[in-house]
Amino acid sequence: MMAFLYKADAVRGAEWARLFAVKAPDMPFHIWPDTGDAEDVRYLAAWLPPADIENRFPRLEILFSTGAGIDQFDLAALPPGLPVVRLAEPGVVAGMVEYATMAVLALHRDLPVYIRQQREARWAAHRVIPATQRRVGVLGLGVLGRAVLERLRAFGFPLAGWSRTRHEVDGVTCYAGDDELPAMLARTEILVCLLPLTAQTRGILDAALFRQLPRGASLVHAGRGAQLDHQALLDALDEGWLSGAVIDVTDPEPLPGNHPYWTHPKILLTPHVASMTQPETAVEQVLDNIRRHQAGLPLVGLVDRSRGY
Amino acid sequence: MMAFLYKADAVRGAEWARLFAVKAPDMPFHIWPDTGDAEDVRYLAAWLPPADIENRFPRLEILFSTGAGIDQFDLAALPPGLPVVRLAEPGVVAGMVEYATMAVLALHRDLPVYIRQQREARWAAHRVIPATQRRVGVLGLGVLGRAVLERLRAFGFPLAGWSRTRHEVDGVTCYAGDDELPAMLARTEILVCLLPLTAQTRGILDAALFRQLPRGASLVHAGRGAQLDHQALLDALDEGWLSGAVIDVTDPEPLPGNHPYWTHPKILLTPHVASMTQPETAVEQVLDNIRRHQAGLPLVGLVDRSRGY
Repeated sequence: MMAFLYKADAVRGAEWARLFAVKAPDMPFHIWPDTGDAEDVRYLAAWLPPADIENRFPRLEILFSTGAGIDQFDLAALPPGLPVVRLAEPGVVAGMVEYATMAVLALHRDLPVYIRQQREARWAAHRVIPATQRRVGVLGLGVLGRAVLERLRAFGFPLAGWSRTRHEVDGVTCYAGDDELPAMLARTEILVCLLPLTAQTRGILDAALFRQLPRGASLVHAGRGAQLDHQALLDALDEGWLSGAVIDVTDPEPLPGNHPYWTHPKILLTPHVASMTQPETAVEQVLDNIRRHQAGLPLVGLVDRSRGY
Repeated sequence: MMAFLYKADAVRGAEWARLFAVKAPDMPFHIWPDTGDAEDVRYLAAWLPPADIENRFPRLEILFSTGAGIDQFDLAALPPGLPVVRLAEPGVVAGMVEYATMAVLALHRDLPVYIRQQREARWAAHRVIPATQRRVGVLGLGVLGRAVLERLRAFGFPLAGWSRTRHEVDGVTCYAGDDELPAMLARTEILVCLLPLTAQTRGILDAALFRQLPRGASLVHAGRGAQLDHQALLDALDEGWLSGAVIDVTDPEPLPGNHPYWTHPKILLTPHVASMTQPETAVEQVLDNIRRHQAGLPLVGLVDRSRGY
């Protein structure tokens, strides 16, 4: 028997079970803590994998993250040869494109200002800057970053992208590596962070980075909370260097009730909802990867443990 | 001498003057109340035309609205044969596409809910509904409505459009006339109003219309304030029939400081900023129309006085 084990949000787990029953009726499907016979578990989809995975599931062949990131995994604690797969499935990508587009347009069109004015019952129009004069830049040029840039292109924003390694994206000025980050920041008025969390990106959104943006720039943060120096953002907003921020991820999550982000007039805060794995498309990608694995083909979304994503 | 007279926002008027000096250096350009010799005025661009236009400017050949609408004009008070032109120039269209996309995504992704939660310091994620399961409908299929639908199509929303006369738009289910309005409303979860203000559309967004939307639907209103029954929207939101609204136009404008929209938790209110004429592209369209007029070609944006837009 080759069984599948799911260990994440139970409501979505029920949907995965329903989809597996239709799309892979021959594969036993278990929802944690019911594992069935642990010897049968070949595939595990988890947000947080159980401890001692190697001894508990000796015949495990693939570990799937139920999210687009795997920074919640302790890679060192996983069996060295076990393939780890991220779920950059179409549902996650579509959700991120929607959120990032909404957030960029909100900053471009002064929505945080109008929300403040509404609270003050103040009717005051501010000039609309054409998109062609608003420079947007995206940190991270993986599946998510490229999809976001493609959607933003239709609005006419001059676009830039930055990533660790060299990429090319149609209509986007691409920068790569530490050496080219300052040039990318210097030309970016709305900065969108979609980076994976790694040792290199932890704390990357700090005071020094904000200083390299032009005065009045703004931030969309939909990467990971630990990439952002929370105090540095407050300082940059309060001294007027940055004009606004749309923040979806924090450290910790949930954000404590007394954190200044909740009440800051220049911050629009959402509770890590930029994108969610959609059961329908996620199950399709998982089953496709299982078929690829069985046929000896390369896996889609396979994590390179040395770079950490 | 064939002179041009501008009568609207003075700051933008100065930009028009600068652009005319470059693009039409031979045409005298005046900003109200300086009219130059009134006999020379052949072209007038105005938000509100002066009274007694026929006697004051006897040789006037075209009246341009400085906005996308002409409902602020009293058509009956204008010389019967005077061509009236609306400014649906590329800058106005781009601004409306940005605003409508932002507003639709904000309602689709529960932004008004998250703004409320932020005030309450409450971290609670709500399920992301795929765009393919969120039906969006646009009232008005002119230049603005069609451009908005085209941009929304990329997100995968099932789209519908409605207009007085029959239109066809790629990838959009189109409805026409009073008879087909109920069917369009019945399938629409996010309704976007981009209609011109006419005798037929005054008060169109009323309790009866809201009742024809499915329960939980929401509204983006970027048409004209007088199309919306303010109290009917409050009632529909308060009884939970509608879930939220993004409102850019009100009646009157500015909205009085004690109006319930300012403080309503389900309303996102902006002060008539969805779209603004951009001097650069507006002047280009005006000059192009003047050239067309002089060459005996049809004008772009010519108003049909019988239908009122």
